[in-house]
Amino acid sequence: MNPVIAIHGGAGTITRKSLDAEQERAYRAALDHALRGGQRILEQGGGALDAVTEAVFRLEECPLFNAGKGAVFTHAGTHELDAAIMDGRTLAAGAVACVKSLRNPILAARRVMEDGRHVLLAGEGAEAFARDAGLETVPPDYFFTEARHAQWRRALAEGRSDLLDHDAQALAAQMETSAETSIGGSTGMGKVGTVGAVALDARGDLAAATSTGGVTDKRAGRVGDSPLIGAGCYANNRTVAVSCTGTGEHFIRLLAAYDVSALMEYRGLPLAEACAAVVLRKLPAIGGLGGLIAVDSQGEVCLPFNSEGMYRGEARAGGARSTAIYRDDHD
Amino acid sequence: MNPVIAIHGGAGTITRKSLDAEQERAYRAALDHALRGGQRILEQGGGALDAVTEAVFRLEECPLFNAGKGAVFTHAGTHELDAAIMDGRTLAAGAVACVKSLRNPILAARRVMEDGRHVLLAGEGAEAFARDAGLETVPPDYFFTEARHAQWRRALAEGRSDLLDHDAQALAAQMETSAETSIGGSTGMGKVGTVGAVALDARGDLAAATSTGGVTDKRAGRVGDSPLIGAGCYANNRTVAVSCTGTGEHFIRLLAAYDVSALMEYRGLPLAEACAAVVLRKLPAIGGLGGLIAVDSQGEVCLPFNSEGMYRGEARAGGARSTAIYRDDHD
Repeated sequence: MNPVIAIHGGAGTITRKSLDAEQERAYRAALDHALRGGQRILEQGGGALDAVTEAVFRLEECPLFNAGKGAVFTHAGTHELDAAIMDGRTLAAGAVACVKSLRNPILAARRVMEDGRHVLLAGEGAEAFARDAGLETVPPDYFFTEARHAQWRRALAEGRSDLLDHDAQALAAQMETSAETSIGGSTGMGKVGTVGAVALDARGDLAAATSTGGVTDKRAGRVGDSPLIGAGCYANNRTVAVSCTGTGEHFIRLLAAYDVSALMEYRGLPLAEACAAVVLRKLPAIGGLGGLIAVDSQGEVCLPFNSEGMYRGEARAGGARSTAIYRDDHD
Repeated sequence: MNPVIAIHGGAGTITRKSLDAEQERAYRAALDHALRGGQRILEQGGGALDAVTEAVFRLEECPLFNAGKGAVFTHAGTHELDAAIMDGRTLAAGAVACVKSLRNPILAARRVMEDGRHVLLAGEGAEAFARDAGLETVPPDYFFTEARHAQWRRALAEGRSDLLDHDAQALAAQMETSAETSIGGSTGMGKVGTVGAVALDARGDLAAATSTGGVTDKRAGRVGDSPLIGAGCYANNRTVAVSCTGTGEHFIRLLAAYDVSALMEYRGLPLAEACAAVVLRKLPAIGGLGGLIAVDSQGEVCLPFNSEGMYRGEARAGGARSTAIYRDDHD
């Protein structure tokens, strides 16, 4: 197997108009840095699980993306983070939801998986578990960034609170708002956004990881697709590893990540056709916007989205790293 | 369409030895009462969603089952309830997780679905949403039952806290403990248990609903399969409505409820074969114990389980209601 990793940093209304040259460079550099972390692990013979953990950890540490440090504000002015990870070899999985004090939710998800007793821990119970495991906690102001704060205040002022619904028109408006709120060089993509990584290692093992701050101005307690196995994150050595980003509720209702796997395993579709069925047909049919990244058991990569853009990248062991943002961006 | 409803009240090591005649009568009467509620709605031309809501509501109100009133204790001595509901016509879904103060979590899940902005709300955010929607809240002692309390104290004393894992041996021991703790006529099935309903109405619409108190002595914040769409609850008019019960983590990792649907839609399996693949092959392969109830778009019913028993029942509009508990129980 030739190891490969792919990552995303969120999908949405990301147009060339919405990012200036400096912003674009910053995003590409951050994507490259995350890719490099995972790629190096794969080049050194490391496992897919470690590669996706490292890549998502780096994206969580970067304030540009809506996960970890750059998490958006809830309606209550707090931050609630979600993450999930899955091991395609064993179908072991771990996830945390609605955590407020953990610097790196993806590391907590990994510990939940390794512990093995549970798959999903939420809220204070998840935080207590992570603290017991020795993971780093941070005070609430760790997640304060000027750009996210301005985004939140704007959402509040517009009375667009709690905005994530099944109505295509509202979603379109929401996506527009996201594009408009390119403040301080750190948004360009606002209300929907998530980070994720998928990888295949030299042993043929697949893994997937996803992490998010959710949607700006969300109701406290709202859980999107990111920490839900089969919705925003899935890996199975027989088929594919998938990480999703977009209007989470639609991904939940379709089991978007697992559906790619099921279409491959049960209907025999090749990766690209399975991804197209989910992202370009089934999601739009119920008003869902966003995309996903996928790498299959043969090392094929597919990065489809139905939105204007998706922060994304891919790299093979020993190969060049490529990053892309816009729809017509084939770098 | 000839409307039909099926229900479950949990699966586990339920043997004839574990229930005396009086206990068995009490369980059968409670199952019949829940079935009757759903059946009457279907007979009056009501929808599948209303039928499954009513049946699960009745099971939540009954102290015999691990949901609502009869919810088990967490390790912390509290109660955390989960529920989900899905509309097969629209793929709309709603769920709540880790709620402590809501008398009927299934009604909260229904409101989340009808509200449409979210699919899953957890913890205090879910409770605030339900309170705003006018749903009934109860003090913590509402959920106190002697039998569940004794079960919890026994789990604590045995140091078997937080017991739900991927290890078959531990699971077997856990199931045994469940069978042993038939205290006060209100267990007979202990650490794993959940209630659910699936229905097909006269218009051909399918719906599924699931509600649980989780596992006895669980870690606070643990979320099982019940409130997770595609894991413990799924409905799709093209295929099937499914509600699961068992060792939740295994159902999450397999997307058990959605997998039945995917095997039917993508591989063309009939209902019984799809159910057998998931419950009798895929779940045991990863150490999963439990069962599910399913009704497909043609009104076929399947109630498979790989444990010793499952509290279950089914009824067609205008037909007799049948309930069953044990493996060799064909009533």
